[in-house]
Amino acid sequence: MKRIPINETPKYLGKQIKLSGWVNSRRDHGKLIFIDLRDRNGLTQVVFVPQEKEIYNLAQKLRNEWVVEVIGKVSQRPKGMENPKIETGKIEVKAKELKIFSEAKTLPFSIETDGHEIGEEKRLKYRYLDLRRKRLQKNLDIRQEVIRFIREYLQQENFIEIETPILTKSTPEGARDFLVPSRLQAGKFYALPQSPQQYKQLLMVSGIEKYFQIARCLRDEDPRGDRQAEHTQLDIEMSFVEQEDILNLIEGLYLNLCKKLFPKKKIKEIPFPRFNYEEVIKKYNTDKPDLRKDKSNPNELAFCFITNFPMFEWHKKDKKWGPMHHPFTKPQTKNIKEINKNPEKILSFQHDFVLNGNEIGGGSLRSTDAETLTAVFEVLSHKKEEIKERFGHLLEAFQYGVPPHGGIAMGIDRFLAIVLNEPNIREVMAFPKTGDNRDLMMDAPSKVSKEQLKELHIKVSKKND
Amino acid sequence: MKRIPINETPKYLGKQIKLSGWVNSRRDHGKLIFIDLRDRNGLTQVVFVPQEKEIYNLAQKLRNEWVVEVIGKVSQRPKGMENPKIETGKIEVKAKELKIFSEAKTLPFSIETDGHEIGEEKRLKYRYLDLRRKRLQKNLDIRQEVIRFIREYLQQENFIEIETPILTKSTPEGARDFLVPSRLQAGKFYALPQSPQQYKQLLMVSGIEKYFQIARCLRDEDPRGDRQAEHTQLDIEMSFVEQEDILNLIEGLYLNLCKKLFPKKKIKEIPFPRFNYEEVIKKYNTDKPDLRKDKSNPNELAFCFITNFPMFEWHKKDKKWGPMHHPFTKPQTKNIKEINKNPEKILSFQHDFVLNGNEIGGGSLRSTDAETLTAVFEVLSHKKEEIKERFGHLLEAFQYGVPPHGGIAMGIDRFLAIVLNEPNIREVMAFPKTGDNRDLMMDAPSKVSKEQLKELHIKVSKKND
Repeated sequence: MKRIPINETPKYLGKQIKLSGWVNSRRDHGKLIFIDLRDRNGLTQVVFVPQEKEIYNLAQKLRNEWVVEVIGKVSQRPKGMENPKIETGKIEVKAKELKIFSEAKTLPFSIETDGHEIGEEKRLKYRYLDLRRKRLQKNLDIRQEVIRFIREYLQQENFIEIETPILTKSTPEGARDFLVPSRLQAGKFYALPQSPQQYKQLLMVSGIEKYFQIARCLRDEDPRGDRQAEHTQLDIEMSFVEQEDILNLIEGLYLNLCKKLFPKKKIKEIPFPRFNYEEVIKKYNTDKPDLRKDKSNPNELAFCFITNFPMFEWHKKDKKWGPMHHPFTKPQTKNIKEINKNPEKILSFQHDFVLNGNEIGGGSLRSTDAETLTAVFEVLSHKKEEIKERFGHLLEAFQYGVPPHGGIAMGIDRFLAIVLNEPNIREVMAFPKTGDNRDLMMDAPSKVSKEQLKELHIKVSKKND
Repeated sequence: MKRIPINETPKYLGKQIKLSGWVNSRRDHGKLIFIDLRDRNGLTQVVFVPQEKEIYNLAQKLRNEWVVEVIGKVSQRPKGMENPKIETGKIEVKAKELKIFSEAKTLPFSIETDGHEIGEEKRLKYRYLDLRRKRLQKNLDIRQEVIRFIREYLQQENFIEIETPILTKSTPEGARDFLVPSRLQAGKFYALPQSPQQYKQLLMVSGIEKYFQIARCLRDEDPRGDRQAEHTQLDIEMSFVEQEDILNLIEGLYLNLCKKLFPKKKIKEIPFPRFNYEEVIKKYNTDKPDLRKDKSNPNELAFCFITNFPMFEWHKKDKKWGPMHHPFTKPQTKNIKEINKNPEKILSFQHDFVLNGNEIGGGSLRSTDAETLTAVFEVLSHKKEEIKERFGHLLEAFQYGVPPHGGIAMGIDRFLAIVLNEPNIREVMAFPKTGDNRDLMMDAPSKVSKEQLKELHIKVSKKND
């Protein structure tokens, strides 16, 4: 007999069916035993009557969260016993057979609530139980739907998804790299990708033209705010485009996505407003303005783009210029001398994408000509060897015929947290870590054996090494 | 003016259009200059006439692989000049405007061939140029289509794709782990996932029931055969299923996939034959039989499943039992004593999936009850602390109500190499590494700074450390 998903039970009225799932709750009424059986799709009421002696006795042992299989007949509930709140509220299953797959200890917390009242550490340690919560299962379902929509939309637009490597090269910039010691090349290290930035630009040199990837990015950041060492981004790069093409693509994607998957949300302004950096700073004192009428209204989505950023920003501490975005961002001037002379005046083709006061995406058109890049590197006071070491392969690639190109990367986790009205990105990820990057469920990071380290040609330093 | 993809050029006969792409070749005939312009979608002929003096002079500079934009009128080619071999063979574009985006040095190899004749190291170093090859672009296109089909098929079947972490725990078994030193937890290490095995089993405890993921797996293997440290697998886990349910799902998926995307391939036998391990070894002397009539025929696909594997295999060198699959594989007996007494006789619910003599997938039903797992760990002579350290969180999770479950994982790269008749998996990946795991394009692994190592609390060992 084939197992029926619980939400389909009402279709089988009068018929014998097989269900399996978790005992959500048990109630004894007079001589009858009722359980609410739960599977991924819903809840249904199962009744055990004393006449079915063997399974009635077995049912007396049932406790919450035991895993069982029930065979029984779908029947109308007695008048007055219906529960209009649930899909299966008009029927019940009269058990004829009962099999216990697994008993269960008392859970460390209730999974009936939304979980907001439970300590974070406990939730993370027992994440596999926390994920039984309806709220988190719904979030994972919507996460899949959002990513599915993005893929279909971009594939329709002739984008191709290409997987880029996890083991790559350390190019210290932006955040810190995670490093991976190499066993076969003693004393050398891979880095985990902070983003597929260089790969996607190389793909443009390959003539791919329209690349995207739902990409895993890893940054060894200090614990602050609502960050995770791992996050998922929608990574995009396009050739033969202007900035407008990129912004229009993203606007179309997010508009259609929200209309389809979040039809109850109100989008504040269409087309999404576009601000100059200078203008937005003057008006809102931030480059991530929250444009909602009521800043606490989660059902309003106020998207906007920011452009015309300065190319460089002055790092007071180091007394030098840094890039506002990254050195491959295209300056708006073609006057090389001007870049060297008045770096503070140079604007760039950077673009940020903002939703309800959060930066949910950013990118730029890229520089590809050697003269411009040299001028930019000079302003950033990079040394020649450093440039070669960090960007040599990209600069070499640009000598073999490079199309004008640009791109953008959007945070998937942050977007989901906002549209799902969740207080943090942990609630939209299956297996998040703590703020200081521990996995309390798996107990990672953990100690490893001396043999493992020896093979990798490394030692753990002593305290004062 | 909007840029037109080159394959659509014929639609614009008589009209002025804009094209951009790479100069695939240039020929001078009398006073005319012809270039074949190439973009992601095709090739078209562009003509420069001396009457358009300015751009004619510019066109004289053009060399192969320069990147240009052309505006011109789509015209019928003169009689006798048609090329029936290409889509755009009846038309040509009479250039009115020409813009040079990028010049190009002579490429280190021709991209007109399939590339088989070029040394592997050179191809990997200039992978961004190698990827301009039609053959590799086609492989990447089909890779996307295969993965897209898999996702749509499984989502139709109510599977949910869930992303599992890249930074996880070292559980030394199977191949070697890649390790990642933790900066915030001195002396501790993450491991990169060899597969999402434990996470997917934990998701079954969460009640997810039907999980899949196109997952990145990382194994620090010794250079041998056609392996890559990173590979992509279709990872599946299901609750409340028998082995038959898993095999039927996979058979349906691969049958439909091949019918849709590789309609010219002949599938040798439907339903896919299923062999006992003992039977297949006796008959073919391997558990990966190639069942094609003609073993060199790439257009025949001979799938089969192998089941009824032994649970354990004797490791002569270590003089102890090892698991044929892994310790969580479910034995076919419920007789605990028998497991301890006659481990050599115990069969398991392991299943392998084979195509044309290659193992392209494998999995099992899982043990979830403490008694069976204890017996298996005893046969494997695992120590108690080791069990707790390696599997403790999974064993604990099973105490909170675990459904019967099982799964399978399929190699995406290997499958693609077979159906695309490629000699190795590098040809179906965008950015593969060498056999000893070097990325010749990015120059990884590479040396890192002392500061980076200091932050990570590690040192590189001296030779005799």
